[in-house]
Amino acid sequence: MLKNLLYPNTVAIVGASRAPGKVGHEIVANLINGKFEGKIAPVNPSSDSILGLKCYPDLKSIPNGIDLSIIAVPTPVVKPAIEDSIQAGAKAIIVITAGFKEVGEEGKALEIEIAQICKSKGVNLLGPNCLGLLNTHHKMNASFAKHMPMTGGISVISQSGALCTAILDWAAGRHLGLAKLISMGNKADLCETEFLNAFADDSETKVIVGYLESIVSGDQFIKAAEAAATKKPVVIFKAGTTQAGVKAASSHTGSLAGADIAYGAAFTRSGVIRAETFEAMFDYATAFAMQPLPKGERVAIITNAGGPGIMAADAAEIAGLKVTSLGGGTATALREKLPAAASVANPIDVLGDADPDRYVMAVEAAQADESVDAIIVIMTPQAMTKPAETARAIAKCANHEKPILASFMGGEDVMPGRAELVAHNLPDYTSPERAVAALRAMCTYASWLKRPTRVVTRFPVNRRRAERIIRRHIRTKSFQVGEAYAKEILRAYDFNVPPGEVANNVEVAIEVADRIGYPVAMKIVSPDIIHKSDIGGVKLNLLSAEAVRDAFDLMMLRIRDKMPEARLDGVYIEKMCKRGREVILGMTRDRQFGPMLMFGLGGIFVEVMKDVTFHIAPITADEAIQMLQGTKSYALLKGVRGQASVDIQAIAESLQRISQLVTDFPEIVEMDINPFMVGEVGSESIAADARITLVKKD
Amino acid sequence: MLKNLLYPNTVAIVGASRAPGKVGHEIVANLINGKFEGKIAPVNPSSDSILGLKCYPDLKSIPNGIDLSIIAVPTPVVKPAIEDSIQAGAKAIIVITAGFKEVGEEGKALEIEIAQICKSKGVNLLGPNCLGLLNTHHKMNASFAKHMPMTGGISVISQSGALCTAILDWAAGRHLGLAKLISMGNKADLCETEFLNAFADDSETKVIVGYLESIVSGDQFIKAAEAAATKKPVVIFKAGTTQAGVKAASSHTGSLAGADIAYGAAFTRSGVIRAETFEAMFDYATAFAMQPLPKGERVAIITNAGGPGIMAADAAEIAGLKVTSLGGGTATALREKLPAAASVANPIDVLGDADPDRYVMAVEAAQADESVDAIIVIMTPQAMTKPAETARAIAKCANHEKPILASFMGGEDVMPGRAELVAHNLPDYTSPERAVAALRAMCTYASWLKRPTRVVTRFPVNRRRAERIIRRHIRTKSFQVGEAYAKEILRAYDFNVPPGEVANNVEVAIEVADRIGYPVAMKIVSPDIIHKSDIGGVKLNLLSAEAVRDAFDLMMLRIRDKMPEARLDGVYIEKMCKRGREVILGMTRDRQFGPMLMFGLGGIFVEVMKDVTFHIAPITADEAIQMLQGTKSYALLKGVRGQASVDIQAIAESLQRISQLVTDFPEIVEMDINPFMVGEVGSESIAADARITLVKKD
Repeated sequence: MLKNLLYPNTVAIVGASRAPGKVGHEIVANLINGKFEGKIAPVNPSSDSILGLKCYPDLKSIPNGIDLSIIAVPTPVVKPAIEDSIQAGAKAIIVITAGFKEVGEEGKALEIEIAQICKSKGVNLLGPNCLGLLNTHHKMNASFAKHMPMTGGISVISQSGALCTAILDWAAGRHLGLAKLISMGNKADLCETEFLNAFADDSETKVIVGYLESIVSGDQFIKAAEAAATKKPVVIFKAGTTQAGVKAASSHTGSLAGADIAYGAAFTRSGVIRAETFEAMFDYATAFAMQPLPKGERVAIITNAGGPGIMAADAAEIAGLKVTSLGGGTATALREKLPAAASVANPIDVLGDADPDRYVMAVEAAQADESVDAIIVIMTPQAMTKPAETARAIAKCANHEKPILASFMGGEDVMPGRAELVAHNLPDYTSPERAVAALRAMCTYASWLKRPTRVVTRFPVNRRRAERIIRRHIRTKSFQVGEAYAKEILRAYDFNVPPGEVANNVEVAIEVADRIGYPVAMKIVSPDIIHKSDIGGVKLNLLSAEAVRDAFDLMMLRIRDKMPEARLDGVYIEKMCKRGREVILGMTRDRQFGPMLMFGLGGIFVEVMKDVTFHIAPITADEAIQMLQGTKSYALLKGVRGQASVDIQAIAESLQRISQLVTDFPEIVEMDINPFMVGEVGSESIAADARITLVKKD
Repeated sequence: MLKNLLYPNTVAIVGASRAPGKVGHEIVANLINGKFEGKIAPVNPSSDSILGLKCYPDLKSIPNGIDLSIIAVPTPVVKPAIEDSIQAGAKAIIVITAGFKEVGEEGKALEIEIAQICKSKGVNLLGPNCLGLLNTHHKMNASFAKHMPMTGGISVISQSGALCTAILDWAAGRHLGLAKLISMGNKADLCETEFLNAFADDSETKVIVGYLESIVSGDQFIKAAEAAATKKPVVIFKAGTTQAGVKAASSHTGSLAGADIAYGAAFTRSGVIRAETFEAMFDYATAFAMQPLPKGERVAIITNAGGPGIMAADAAEIAGLKVTSLGGGTATALREKLPAAASVANPIDVLGDADPDRYVMAVEAAQADESVDAIIVIMTPQAMTKPAETARAIAKCANHEKPILASFMGGEDVMPGRAELVAHNLPDYTSPERAVAALRAMCTYASWLKRPTRVVTRFPVNRRRAERIIRRHIRTKSFQVGEAYAKEILRAYDFNVPPGEVANNVEVAIEVADRIGYPVAMKIVSPDIIHKSDIGGVKLNLLSAEAVRDAFDLMMLRIRDKMPEARLDGVYIEKMCKRGREVILGMTRDRQFGPMLMFGLGGIFVEVMKDVTFHIAPITADEAIQMLQGTKSYALLKGVRGQASVDIQAIAESLQRISQLVTDFPEIVEMDINPFMVGEVGSESIAADARITLVKKD
């Protein structure tokens, strides 16, 4: 995939320049300095040669055509340069030039135009407004960033060109290898989706790292990310997490779901490891690139100083890793070999005067111990410490079955050791806490890889019936589906809903109440009245026909007084349902990632404690249970102080039915079942109140 | 303070050695290499000179005596070396030698002995088992760590010698200045308290940094830390946070309060800035040492790249800082000076090709803007970027009224800029997020400095009455004070407690019930029965004398059946109290920091959500309110969905009364008032149930 972009044989630089400092010059220089082995063809009508290379007056003069064209001409002539490039045989084009979408409507129109030209000809377009790309394994620096990193297994996509330069500079300083680095610019054509797909299949890429500010398509992103993560780790840092905020919404679910939550749900769903900070992004990537995945979460800590050992143990415990007890054999073996004052518990303290041999003994013991899944090695620079020798010795004894992460703490004294660690593929961190965070990321990914196959249950439902109600509401522009009809829709999807019917006069109301049996509730049905209780539109516990008649008359009186303009469709007569634990099940449709299901305990747990979880639909039975378990208040469902557990499975199944409903009907943009009443295992759960919002179509 | 330890004129090294690599050699070498200007007196009977210095056969041969003695002889001869040092006039002693408390009982006894010798002679002892100390302003490296850092304003105390070496190595690499560095070792005599006091008064110390694994005295620590923090920032990293865990406790309060929570409460109380990681410790210290404190939390971000600007804004928002709107004048001024494509909102984007001048314009505008309290400057290394010149230009235009923190991202390319930043006292961070975290620490400290004076209210109470009950319980070894007597104690401290009395037979029970009025509750009173309900020891809502008689007889029957051995003191007859919002007020006595008060909403909020706050007693009215506001469920107290607020002041006052009670009686080790019933403002709050645990004395 993207072969002509990433592995071209002939590269034209349109706008190549003799003047150092100009972008069109730097790209040519970088291709040369990177030792590109293909043909470099500078294009500029006013030069014969640039940096010793023959310069062509135009694209069509290049013999045998081109694979990739890099365009660095002024904005107004980008379009003809693209057309000429395609004519000259280019199958991929990079537009470095800025001045498109980012400067306003005119630029945006031009950007769409050039993207369409490329698309119609089957040509891949990177940019515009980007830094270019690097492919170390093809010895190609097709960018205006001067650093050419060492070859390595980390491929990077970035939505910020400036960050690419910082990454390259940083990688150079750490002697860290990269595979590909892509500056995506405005993403007029190629975006994260294509590169996730390409890197997933790229044997030179071991880890995919991404810096994103937005994504082009939520659906495609999730598919591509999940497919890639199934093959290799994908680490993404998403900037702009707090900017988007929370959209104005009428449902609880909508008001609790911000864009950041949606990204989090999408990453969890697709196995993407989320980096919380810029440094974490490479901390994690380095671990993934250099070390095998751990089989479990039990970590052995080896240190030549007590304090940093405690730091690592604290951080591990907080991160949910296990600072495991070492196997009995391990302690015995270490006790024989290490000085008496050494600690052979975990952390293993090889003491301040530890030589390389002691570190090796400890690492070998931890590697042999079946109760250890991962090893963190800490060094402080003390009088006898030999950082470089120790690093080499650890590298030599590593059997590559369990990950080893190091933290050599300090500055100049440990620097030779840190260099040896990186040279031998042992990731090194400036503090024990950062080593632990990287190991945590590895464990999270390893456990995602072992997830069961996703099977989404399809329940037999009466889809046609729901469809009729939804269509009718949209036709009459009743985008807020009130309780009565929302419950009709839920009935069609086999939810338990208390028996009830809409009555449009008092005689029918009494007839319905007599039929379903007392006590009943009466609620006004009107597309114009959302907060029914506030204007006397709800009456509960009506025990007789007489009570129904009184309530009906009173309700009509009140509404005539307070909302004389409201359209009235009648009243909803419903059997009073028995109480239970109240939970809320909901959905809101994210602009990027589509339907997001929400679960939480009702009332204050949602409103005050905001103790809710989200998951992108469709969900599996496992994922539904995980949503429940993800809330702090889950313990209340399982029963505290000797109470029986509520019917967890009933809630999980209902979440799956909502998942099916909102997947079947993209017209549903928000819904709340609040409260959903759930009792002990085996009892009947009930959707006691519900509302649905449909998409507005004009 | 500690003048002879930190500023000695004559230093003896007992156990000085000619052999490089030996500790006794390295210390002499380090004193020489550090250019110590006082007299260095090596002591060794078998050498005439060491490293060109005259070597003395013993301490008494040194003419004119000594100020400081550094002892690096084998453990068995440390004690005579101390005695000789004191004889020779030493007023301060450092014992480098290990083999004391850390190796077992015998070592511990020796350590206590040498500490007592020093104490009895008024001599300060540092160590044993330490690295020594450095004082850059006295050109003294009295340690066996070879790096002598530059002079600077950061003084460090560390409980780990190995960490000292890492810190020194790291500071050398960053060209960062230190004032003092103290390796405290086993803290046989001098500990954090003395150094906090000494550094508080040390004009060369601008910031105090501490690495602690434990503290010697909670009380003294809080006093010393608060006094120091009032004068200068104190940043502490506490390791071992998760180890101590939670002690086994019969009260809710006790079971929720771990050692880490106690440290957190102590730090908050005394104005200590807590560093969560090793790196954060110096990130924060650097900011404090180099920049003025911000007057508020509004931050302006200046960047030459969009992505990192977003990162900083995200991090600031998450940290509770304000990414403020710039004043109108600022935008206008910048719009005139910066290129059209620059963003003059916040973050201010000076664009990828920004030269030093553009950075200066932005910094000057932010400095002049009254809606800005602090400035973060970000740079990525792009084609035109001049890191070193930019750093110098920023330093030149800084007016030192608002803090400026920088993040020059990358490696080699930005390194010259980073060096210039540090050289000009501009703190620099490898990522925008770390700059933001440091600014957050500055804001927290600045706001602590502005706290109101602490005034603890003393309520008029009947202390004698409480004392009598407590004494009687301790005398009879009834360390669990049950509900009836716990409520007597609360009455003495003017809590509202429902009227009630202990009755030891059924006739008295009926007489009491008749007097206080029905309905009443009846609860068994027995020092042996803690979980009263479990064995039928609680009956509620008794409406008549007959009901009291039935309940009494049944209760006695049940208890004879189930706990025939239990001692019975009678039954507690109490008027049933009206319901309200249930909260829990509690106290547990931390081993280090003494009484810790707890507040939380009752029931599931404590048991499941663990939504509680702690504060060290005694507390002020302000702090009591802060405890309430610190819970997530505080909104419930203030009233949600149109409910009225409960009586917040009544809860706050009750917390203060508990504070007074547990300060008056150190014998109280744990107590819970659970539930404490509180109604609307002006209604009566009630301590509906209570238990107190007294300290066991044999």
